[in-house]
Amino acid sequence: MISAAMQQIWEVFIVLFFATFTKSAYTRSCGRPSAPLPDDSASYCLSWRLGVEANNVRAWRTVPTQCLRHIENYMTGGQYERDLNFIMEHIESYIDTIQLSEDGLDAWILDVDDTCISNVFYYRGKRFGCDPFDPDGFRKWALRGGCPAIPAVQRLFNNLVGSGFKVFLVTGRDEETLGQATLDNLHNQGFIGYEKLIMRSAAYRGQSAVAYKSEIRKQLEGGGSGGDIGAGGYRIWGNVGDQWSDLQGNCTGNRTFKLPNPMYFVP
Amino acid sequence: MISAAMQQIWEVFIVLFFATFTKSAYTRSCGRPSAPLPDDSASYCLSWRLGVEANNVRAWRTVPTQCLRHIENYMTGGQYERDLNFIMEHIESYIDTIQLSEDGLDAWILDVDDTCISNVFYYRGKRFGCDPFDPDGFRKWALRGGCPAIPAVQRLFNNLVGSGFKVFLVTGRDEETLGQATLDNLHNQGFIGYEKLIMRSAAYRGQSAVAYKSEIRKQLEGGGSGGDIGAGGYRIWGNVGDQWSDLQGNCTGNRTFKLPNPMYFVP
Repeated sequence: MISAAMQQIWEVFIVLFFATFTKSAYTRSCGRPSAPLPDDSASYCLSWRLGVEANNVRAWRTVPTQCLRHIENYMTGGQYERDLNFIMEHIESYIDTIQLSEDGLDAWILDVDDTCISNVFYYRGKRFGCDPFDPDGFRKWALRGGCPAIPAVQRLFNNLVGSGFKVFLVTGRDEETLGQATLDNLHNQGFIGYEKLIMRSAAYRGQSAVAYKSEIRKQLEGGGSGGDIGAGGYRIWGNVGDQWSDLQGNCTGNRTFKLPNPMYFVP
Repeated sequence: MISAAMQQIWEVFIVLFFATFTKSAYTRSCGRPSAPLPDDSASYCLSWRLGVEANNVRAWRTVPTQCLRHIENYMTGGQYERDLNFIMEHIESYIDTIQLSEDGLDAWILDVDDTCISNVFYYRGKRFGCDPFDPDGFRKWALRGGCPAIPAVQRLFNNLVGSGFKVFLVTGRDEETLGQATLDNLHNQGFIGYEKLIMRSAAYRGQSAVAYKSEIRKQLEGGGSGGDIGAGGYRIWGNVGDQWSDLQGNCTGNRTFKLPNPMYFVP
C-alpha cells in the first residue's frame, strides 16, 4: 500500500520535474524571460499602435478586433500610465527652460478628453475602441460629469498654473449640450485655476478638430474680431493632446506633445 | 528508510505543487502568459521608444544605455521589419486612392539613410545608438557604398516608379564627399529609375535638416530661381522618412509617413 502510494507520488514528481526542466530549457533557448518572442497577433498590434501614435494610420474607425486584449492590457496593465509619466517628465524638463515674462501672456494649451480627464472607464464598455463610436452613449457618459482626472496630467496642470502660465483648456465637446457638465467635471476633479475652458460653440459645429482648434489658437495668438479670447497676444509655449488633430494645423505652439490614445481617432 | 525517502519526496512534491499553483494564480490575477508584466527597464524603454516615434522626445544624442538590449532586440528581432511592412501596407493603400495626371508632375519624396538603405550594420558597432554619433566613422561607412536596401521600402520604390510617380530621393548627405558613393550604393541596391537624387550641396551646409529639406520641397513645388529642380510645379503626394525632420517644415507633402528609427536623431 505504502509502496503503491510512493510510486504514484514519484510519478507525479517526475512529471513535474520534467515539466519544469523543459520550460527552463525552452526559456533559455528561445528567448529571454523579459523579452518573449511575440505571437503574430501581439506583433501586429504593436505595429498598429506604433502606426497610430506616429500618425501613419489615420481616419481609423475602430481598433482591430484582434487587438482588443492588447489594447486592454496596454490601457489597464500599467504601460499607458508609464508612458504618460514619461512624457510628463519631458514636459517638465522643457518647462524648466522657459523664462516667463511679466506681461501675463505666456500660455499653454491642454486638450480635455483623455488629456485632462479620462474616458477609459467608458471605453472599457466599448471593448476599448473595438466597437464603433457611439455619439449618444458618449454624450450620456460625458453628461454624468464623472470622468476621473488623469493623475500625471493633473500634476502638470498644477505645475503650469503654479508657475504662472495661462492655461487654456480647448475641447471639441459641444458647448451647448456639454458645457455645464464639463465645467463641473473639471472642477470636481480639481482642475482649478485655468484661464478659460474653450468649447465648440455653434459657429464651429461640423468643422474638423484641426480647423476648429487652429482657429482658436490663432485667436489666442493674434486676437482679432469675433474672437472668444479677448485681445489675444498670447505666446503658446506648449500644446498637449491625445490626438494628432489637437497638435496640427496653424499656430500649433512652440512645442507639441502627443499623449497616447489607441482607443479612438478624432479627425 | 523507505518512509524517510517517501517523506522527502512528498516534501519536494508539496513544494513543487505550491510553486506551480502560486504561479498559476499569479498569472490569472496579474497578467496573461502571452503578455507578461515587463520589468522596469523594458517598460522604460517602451516609453522611450514611443516618445521618440511620436516626436515627444527630441534632440536626443544617444539611446539610454539601459535600452541597448531593447533596441537591439527591436532592430534585429523582427519587430522593426514588421513595423516597416505594416506602414508600407498603409502607404500602398493610400497610393491606390491617387489618380495620377498625365503632366508628369506627380511626385513622391523618399529619404535615403534608414529609409531606402539601411545603416543597421553600422549601428550594431555603435551599440545601436548608445554610443554618440561619430561623423568620421559614419563617413567611412557611407563611402564604402555597402548599405543594404530596406526590402519593404524597395518594394514601395518599385511600385512608385512603376506607377508613374517622379520619385525624388532627398538626403542630408554631403554631395561633395559622399555623392558618388551614394549614387553607387543606391544603384548596387537596385534603386533605379528615380527622377533625381538631391544631396546637400555647399549652399545648404550647416542648415538644419528641416530648413534644408523644406527649401528643396519648396523648389520642387514652386520652382524659382537658383533651384536645382528645374521648373518645379510638382505635386508632392507622399513623403517618407525615418526622421521627423524629414517630414516637418514647409511643403511637407499631402501625406507624410514616419518610419521607425530608435537609433539616432537628426535635428
